[in-house]
Amino acid sequence: MTQRMNLLMFSGDYDKALAALILANTAKEMDVDVTIFFAFWGLCLVRDPEKSSGEDKTTYEKMFGMMAPKGPEDLPLSKMNFAGIGKEMLLEMMEDDGAPKLIDFLNGARKKGVKFYGCKLSVDIMGFKPEELLPEVEIIEAKDYLKDALSSNMQLFI
Amino acid sequence: MTQRMNLLMFSGDYDKALAALILANTAKEMDVDVTIFFAFWGLCLVRDPEKSSGEDKTTYEKMFGMMAPKGPEDLPLSKMNFAGIGKEMLLEMMEDDGAPKLIDFLNGARKKGVKFYGCKLSVDIMGFKPEELLPEVEIIEAKDYLKDALSSNMQLFI
Amino acid sequence: MTQRMNLLMFSGDYDKALAALILANTAKEMDVDVTIFFAFWGLCLVRDPEKSSGEDKTTYEKMFGMMAPKGPEDLPLSKMNFAGIGKEMLLEMMEDDGAPKLIDFLNGARKKGVKFYGCKLSVDIMGFKPEELLPEVEIIEAKDYLKDALSSNMQLFI
Repeated sequence: MTQRMNLLMFSGDYDKALAALILANTAKEMDVDVTIFFAFWGLCLVRDPEKSSGEDKTTYEKMFGMMAPKGPEDLPLSKMNFAGIGKEMLLEMMEDDGAPKLIDFLNGARKKGVKFYGCKLSVDIMGFKPEELLPEVEIIEAKDYLKDALSSNMQLFI
Repeated sequence: MTQRMNLLMFSGDYDKALAALILANTAKEMDVDVTIFFAFWGLCLVRDPEKSSGEDKTTYEKMFGMMAPKGPEDLPLSKMNFAGIGKEMLLEMMEDDGAPKLIDFLNGARKKGVKFYGCKLSVDIMGFKPEELLPEVEIIEAKDYLKDALSSNMQLFI
Repeated sequence: MTQRMNLLMFSGDYDKALAALILANTAKEMDVDVTIFFAFWGLCLVRDPEKSSGEDKTTYEKMFGMMAPKGPEDLPLSKMNFAGIGKEMLLEMMEDDGAPKLIDFLNGARKKGVKFYGCKLSVDIMGFKPEELLPEVEIIEAKDYLKDALSSNMQLFI
């Protein structure tokens, strides 16, 4: 029987997103089924940087949309960010090692068929429109996340 | 057999507490047994805002008690808090969507019978008195948390 | 059959490391097998404060090595750190209660045989040399972490 890993991606940090996507890609290569449920700040990771919409949004939703990071490479570090200097340093160190960038891991996960879910309540509150997110993201409710998570071999809150 | 979800609530952030309590309420509605073990900053969520005690406390414990958030609505955001502006914005956006507040989810979880445990070591170190916490909170040791967690279908560290 | 707990230690915060090591020590006392996989900032916890190496490092790796915390007692708090004041306060409160320090819990875990793994990709990117880490740390790939985690009774991302 196929093993399953379920990640709840709550955080919108570059380094935590990197950890989640490295685990997701590696698990897929081991034939483990992978689900990522993007909620709250985690949704910033699956915003499509090319698209944004101000239509049908309240003033708060518009402000929030402008202030929140837009897509993978726009995320800050969880630690030692120093207004972006720490992140530049990490990116240089990754490049020196020939390591792929966050967006490469994200695209790898999309290509490998990692299942992307978006949290309905978070999308509603933050005012993101479905068309602003990557097309793979299916909007579901907390109940559906829990069903998936409870029947998985491992669950992480990242 | 009844499924069980075990959450370790370590963080004292408004948004993370919201995520934990939404999951707890939703799981209960699906007839899943839910335990939340409040440790470290997570204990701030179950402080009773009406009660506080300075008795039998060291100076550090008193200072700590005054500086740490008192109850659900006093918690800061984990990101974009901007001295409270980000939180006000999130609260406005939640209100615009008719979403309940953190305290409503907390009271929902209490009413639905989510099991609340408090970490003995954390309570001792932080100097919280049992009477300063919600009456549902039962103080237990890490060993008891682990027994519960190991026999659950899923565990999250939030 | 022996029960197993798997922790992914991502964070480099004093308080979160304390939580992880208290759980690890307690689980071991209950005859539960324990694995901790140190990745990203979590690696700072298992840096040997006595050893450091500037050899074969790029400028970024050297800078990073100097700026990142060196060993358990050098880690900051995740909250209320206030440039170290909050941490001093926590340490005083722990001492008042006769609670062991982080380094005591770390040494306890080493003595009790908690299995320490280090993430290869993180070590490579951050430029840590194996000799800068505690001798118990075995460097493994994400694939090996996942195998261990998927076959454990519980997994936490800390």
